[in-house]
Formats: sequence, C-alpha cells, structure tokens
Amino acid sequence: MTANKTVTTDLYLRVQQFYARQMHAQDSGRHDDYADTFTEDGVFAFGPGLEPAVGRETIRALLTDNSVVGGDDPVQVRHWFNQLVLEPRDDGAFDSRFYALVVNTRPGGTPEFVTSAFVHDVLLIDDDGILMRSRTLSPDHLA
Amino acid sequence: MTANKTVTTDLYLRVQQFYARQMHAQDSGRHDDYADTFTEDGVFAFGPGLEPAVGRETIRALLTDNSVVGGDDPVQVRHWFNQLVLEPRDDGAFDSRFYALVVNTRPGGTPEFVTSAFVHDVLLIDDDGILMRSRTLSPDHLA
Amino acid sequence: MTANKTVTTDLYLRVQQFYARQMHAQDSGRHDDYADTFTEDGVFAFGPGLEPAVGRETIRALLTDNSVVGGDDPVQVRHWFNQLVLEPRDDGAFDSRFYALVVNTRPGGTPEFVTSAFVHDVLLIDDDGILMRSRTLSPDHLA
Repeated sequence: MTANKTVTTDLYLRVQQFYARQMHAQDSGRHDDYADTFTEDGVFAFGPGLEPAVGRETIRALLTDNSVVGGDDPVQVRHWFNQLVLEPRDDGAFDSRFYALVVNTRPGGTPEFVTSAFVHDVLLIDDDGILMRSRTLSPDHLA
Repeated sequence: MTANKTVTTDLYLRVQQFYARQMHAQDSGRHDDYADTFTEDGVFAFGPGLEPAVGRETIRALLTDNSVVGGDDPVQVRHWFNQLVLEPRDDGAFDSRFYALVVNTRPGGTPEFVTSAFVHDVLLIDDDGILMRSRTLSPDHLA
Repeated sequence: MTANKTVTTDLYLRVQQFYARQMHAQDSGRHDDYADTFTEDGVFAFGPGLEPAVGRETIRALLTDNSVVGGDDPVQVRHWFNQLVLEPRDDGAFDSRFYALVVNTRPGGTPEFVTSAFVHDVLLIDDDGILMRSRTLSPDHLA
C-alpha cells in the first residue's frame, strides 16, 4: 500500500484548509486559535538550536510573546505555504512537509520576504478534526 | 453543521480551479474572460476608499482601463493566491477569503513583488459554474 | 463534456501531490527522482531558444549538470507553483499549465526571487501514477 493510496483526496484537502485557517489566525493576531491547533502536549520546534516550546500553554505564551516583539511596528505579516506532501506514519499520525514563506508589508511599503523555510508537522487526524503533535521549522538561511 | 461539513472537497477544488483559470485570463490580458467571472450586477471593490465598480460592464471597462495604464511597459504581471478559506453563508452563497501577491517581471529583470493583499469574494456556486457576486481587495500597504 | 467535468477532484489533487513530491526531490538534489518523473522519451524544453533535452537519461544528465553549476555556492533553491489549470487533451493526455517562482536563500541571507515562469506540462496519468511526456518552461524575463 503506497502513500498515494492512503492519503485520500479528502484528507489532503482537509489539511490544506486546516493550514489556511491556522495562518489566517496567526496573521490576524489570534494567537489563541493558533495555539489551539496543537495537541495539549504539542511540541513547537521553532528554530534550530533553540529549546522547543512544549505544551499548548507554553506555545500560547511563545506565540503571544513573539507577536509583542514587534511592539508598535505596524507590519502585516502573511505566511504562505506550498508544495505540501502528506505521508502516513506507522503510528497512525501523518507526516506533513511543505515550504513556507513569510512576507511582511508595512504601510506604504512593498512586500518584503523575510524567511523561506521547510516545515515538518506531525498531524493527528480524525473525523472530528486535525491537531498538530509537533511543528518543526527549518529556515533556509540557518541551514 | 460546521463549515467543514458543508464545504466539500469537490467544492473547494472547483474554487481553486476557478481562480486559476481566472488569473490565467487576467494575466494574459483576457479582460473579458475575467469580467465574465462576475455576476451581471457584480461589485468589484478594488481598493479601500475607492468607489467600487458595479456591474459586469463597468468592471470590464475598469479592467481594460487598468491594463492600459501600463501603456508600452512590457511587464508580465502574475497574480498568486494562497491560504484559501471557504465558508457557507446564510444566504446560500459562499465567503471566500485568501491571500494574494502581485509579481511583475520585465524583460531581462527579476521578479518584483508589488502588492500583498487580502481578498474577500462572495461566490455563487451551482452545478453549472461559479460566479463572483463581489470581490473586495484589501492591500496590506493600505491597512 | 467540459474540462471541468473530466478533470475530477481526485485527478487535480493527484497532480498537486505529484508536483509537490517532484519539487521536494529537485530542491533536495535528488535529480534521479526528478528525472524519473519524465517518460523514457520525455522532452524537457528548459528555455526558449535552447535545444530541448530529449529522453530521460539526457534529462538526468542536464539536471545533474545544472546542479553542479552552482559549485560550492551553499544556496537552498525552492520551486513554488501556483494557479494550476488542468485540461484533457484529445490524445488522452492532460495539459497542465501553472505559474512557478524560483527562490534562493543563502546562509544568513533573505529569500531572493530569481525567476517567475509559466510552465506547460503534458502529463500521462493512469491508476499507477503520473509521468511527464514534456515540460516547457517560459521564463517571464525572456518573454
């Protein structure tokens, strides 16, 4: 049985929509909604060499802190995803691997691409929804 | 009943393909084909603070005029979309919200990103096809 | 019968996943895997005015050569695709047309977009998989 057989069209599309909603939340500053896409014991490895944030509450604090860093900077951040590959794991979860670009726009400015990254998520998927057991970011400029 | 239940995989994919064809039309200068994706009484709110274009013929004229602005500029414009979220409305139409980037390339040049925007469409979808009742553009640099 | 009717949701999604896997291969330097996505007699027209590479082995050599051009340059290349339009051909194959962006990131640097292109593939699709009979690249800066 190949990955193509077990990753159904419906599943692939549900994941695309899950990510779209998740990034609309993040880029609108709804950090609670983003944090809620992790499992209670989820792991967010947000950069190589950095201690991962473990647990939804820790992740929530991290996301909120990060958003505060900008302070009064009136930047609109948008996260773009592309080239999504899903594969079933032996443990029943799914590996999700894709490209991400982070683009910032300030009032009167043009889009600035600040980061290109490879992302690896482990997703728990059932009829009720999708949760992230982990997200691991690998920014290309830190490779 | 949640949005996830009523926005089927087929519907989500039909909208993706609708947008791909629409943008191939726009970026190839087939403004009639783009205008025809609006309803007869469609509304194109193409920028905050600007009077929306109302009605397919008015929109057609706007699209053609806009394309003329460049004059002899041999620019190839491409519109990219990402992070599409579809949700059913109470009135039977669908809210479609997504990110857009406009990238210009001139002969011998490299890609220039001129606009990052948030787009909100209201779509009428039936077995025959998809039409836009409205499109509202919110460029990030005008936020 | 319209293209919308014959390009099923499943087919459209299979092509999306095919491209995602293909580009993960290319951007990871797995040139054999990329070459294997062409038919044995596949044609890779990689630029206007350039002699196309014909046959999987010739394409394999081209891909490997191109990757060597960079030499010691520690660049991470990523290929992004968007606005995919699929249409059935009279000969049973499918025309696949989409936008591509090539983005380079070097250690400590920010993403650099080097090419925006229009891509036209002819795809052979059956239950076993997808193969490219041809790929034709039309970079926007050479238009």
